[in-house]
Amino acid sequence: MAEAKKLGGAGLRGQVAGETALCTVGKTGAGLTYRGYDINVLADNAQFEEVAYLLLRGKLPNRQELDEYKAKLKANRELPEALRTVLEQIPKNAHPMDVMRTGCSMLGNLETEEDFSQQDDKIDRMLAVFPAIITYWYRFANEGVRIDTANTECDSIGGVFLELLHGKKPNELHEQVMNVSLILYAEHEFNASTFTARVCASTLSDIHSCVTGAIGSLRGPLHGGANEMAMELIQKFNSPEEAEEGLMGMLERKEKIMGFGHAIYSESDPRNAIIKKWAEKLSQEVGDTVLYPVSVRCEEVMWREKKLFCNADFFHASAYHFMGIPTQLFTPIFVMSRVSGWTAHVKEQRANNRIIRPSADYTGPDHAEWQPIDERS
Amino acid sequence: MAEAKKLGGAGLRGQVAGETALCTVGKTGAGLTYRGYDINVLADNAQFEEVAYLLLRGKLPNRQELDEYKAKLKANRELPEALRTVLEQIPKNAHPMDVMRTGCSMLGNLETEEDFSQQDDKIDRMLAVFPAIITYWYRFANEGVRIDTANTECDSIGGVFLELLHGKKPNELHEQVMNVSLILYAEHEFNASTFTARVCASTLSDIHSCVTGAIGSLRGPLHGGANEMAMELIQKFNSPEEAEEGLMGMLERKEKIMGFGHAIYSESDPRNAIIKKWAEKLSQEVGDTVLYPVSVRCEEVMWREKKLFCNADFFHASAYHFMGIPTQLFTPIFVMSRVSGWTAHVKEQRANNRIIRPSADYTGPDHAEWQPIDERS
Repeated sequence: MAEAKKLGGAGLRGQVAGETALCTVGKTGAGLTYRGYDINVLADNAQFEEVAYLLLRGKLPNRQELDEYKAKLKANRELPEALRTVLEQIPKNAHPMDVMRTGCSMLGNLETEEDFSQQDDKIDRMLAVFPAIITYWYRFANEGVRIDTANTECDSIGGVFLELLHGKKPNELHEQVMNVSLILYAEHEFNASTFTARVCASTLSDIHSCVTGAIGSLRGPLHGGANEMAMELIQKFNSPEEAEEGLMGMLERKEKIMGFGHAIYSESDPRNAIIKKWAEKLSQEVGDTVLYPVSVRCEEVMWREKKLFCNADFFHASAYHFMGIPTQLFTPIFVMSRVSGWTAHVKEQRANNRIIRPSADYTGPDHAEWQPIDERS
Repeated sequence: MAEAKKLGGAGLRGQVAGETALCTVGKTGAGLTYRGYDINVLADNAQFEEVAYLLLRGKLPNRQELDEYKAKLKANRELPEALRTVLEQIPKNAHPMDVMRTGCSMLGNLETEEDFSQQDDKIDRMLAVFPAIITYWYRFANEGVRIDTANTECDSIGGVFLELLHGKKPNELHEQVMNVSLILYAEHEFNASTFTARVCASTLSDIHSCVTGAIGSLRGPLHGGANEMAMELIQKFNSPEEAEEGLMGMLERKEKIMGFGHAIYSESDPRNAIIKKWAEKLSQEVGDTVLYPVSVRCEEVMWREKKLFCNADFFHASAYHFMGIPTQLFTPIFVMSRVSGWTAHVKEQRANNRIIRPSADYTGPDHAEWQPIDERS
């Protein structure tokens, strides 16, 4: 074996592990771009389905292409019977990310990607059916109802999710916030879940394996799940004053506070200002006088005391809450969105592949002498 | 963002991505060691359960520890009812690695790792129950029977697998070959599936997510599955002469021939001589006059023509076949074994963790200008 090169940082931080044309994170002048488009422009103008198309097909769709794409997604929302049976076996107290992981894996048994010529169809199917997987399980486990996921009034992925969750068509504002949220979470370069998908893809495994693995990584509290923990934080406080006092105490006790700072961004997370604006609108709509002001105060305190900025997750917490989404479903929404980025990376990895197989620094004993079992201590 | 460092090779080949005390691969003098023990010594002397204990607990067990460990594994072989129902939903023509991936993921819903203090119990449960998952599905899908996985005559993991598969206790030779095979496949440093498990673990996700992701990566034809493809190769030939002629033709046509060479080993795979010896014994036992001689001729031709040596997978093909194991179950056996190495790596990652989040070289457009949808081509 050739002598392995020792990298500077643990966790491959700052080390290039491959190429991508999908995304820049933290580049000067534009904090986040998808295929060159600034995230602000996309959030202001696009539908999530347009962004998914951009990531997956390499260009923005024209009118006809978008109509056909949305029609394809709509036609792919029904859950196979065997998958419904599986979801009904999962207990109410399960972790919703375990449900997503299992739902995706089971889909791979029923609709296996036989070769890569099928990849676009399999990807579109996952985009279409993920909102159905999580809401079918959630409502069966909690209410005992078997929802029809194929027929909805909404035709946007975010709207369908809300409609299936609540059993009624969401208003325009809610559908629009979901749309923006899905755009913001769609893609973020070589984060841990995306890198998981690429490592799996590099063995030339199937698309469901890649996405199942990515869901498992996103489940980790250092990755997805920060919006759920932000919700738990802000719900502790009944007023901005309480939040100020509570946060100061947490900082003094050096407790971990989620939803602030970022591994890559150093000055701000460009997604924060966008979702914050929508969280404020929702707050006004529902007549909230607590959660949004508490969130704003948290933002001020963390910046004043620690120069830590809100990341994409922090104002997502109140925004989702105002739309009646249970906290435990926040990270599955992340999955519904990020599956677009994950699978775009899988396509990219497949198009120019070498198996990802790093080396390790060995820290164990050079040689160990075998002892018969009865001579061991 | 700090300027990212460009690595020399694609796929992180030869680049150190972390530390391990578990394994050396391709070091001079000893081709493969687990915690310092030479693979030849382990294959000659150990039980697989001893090796799993070594990898997971850091030392070889004494008599009492091994007895307790095997008793614990034996007590953990029963499938929960909900998991049996899920396995019964998976069609006969599914990919067995999709079954393993889904079985592991479903187990995570039913027996979730709530915190890392539970990791050893969850790992031992997976070691114990994986043979039950694959054989329960296989026999239900193919024969319509619901096997009792809890009560077996054998108490070794390899023996249990054969007993559940065939519905009768295997003979001593077969149980021993399975034991050796599981030892050979148990651990192999930062290969793609193990690295997948470590990336997932680095987000502090749960153990079932880590293993589910690793199964997905092992499924890829560039990683696991080479023994299945080796089987397909040797079954094409009815004599060594046919094999010689056939291989020469394949080489001339530059066709891909599986089971030879290795990404890390340059001169030989230390596991090959071990499994080859056992394949020969099995060949004699069943009175085979074709498969083993064909395999030996393939080895000779590939070395003579290409200086390519057999890797661990090549003689595994005939060995498994002689024991009546269907070819499609070869890679799931790899899972039953490697889960020990994967989870030992997860424990190691958790003990000294930083999230694995590399960077990427951006190759896309610097800036793209938004066009309203009706102005797009």
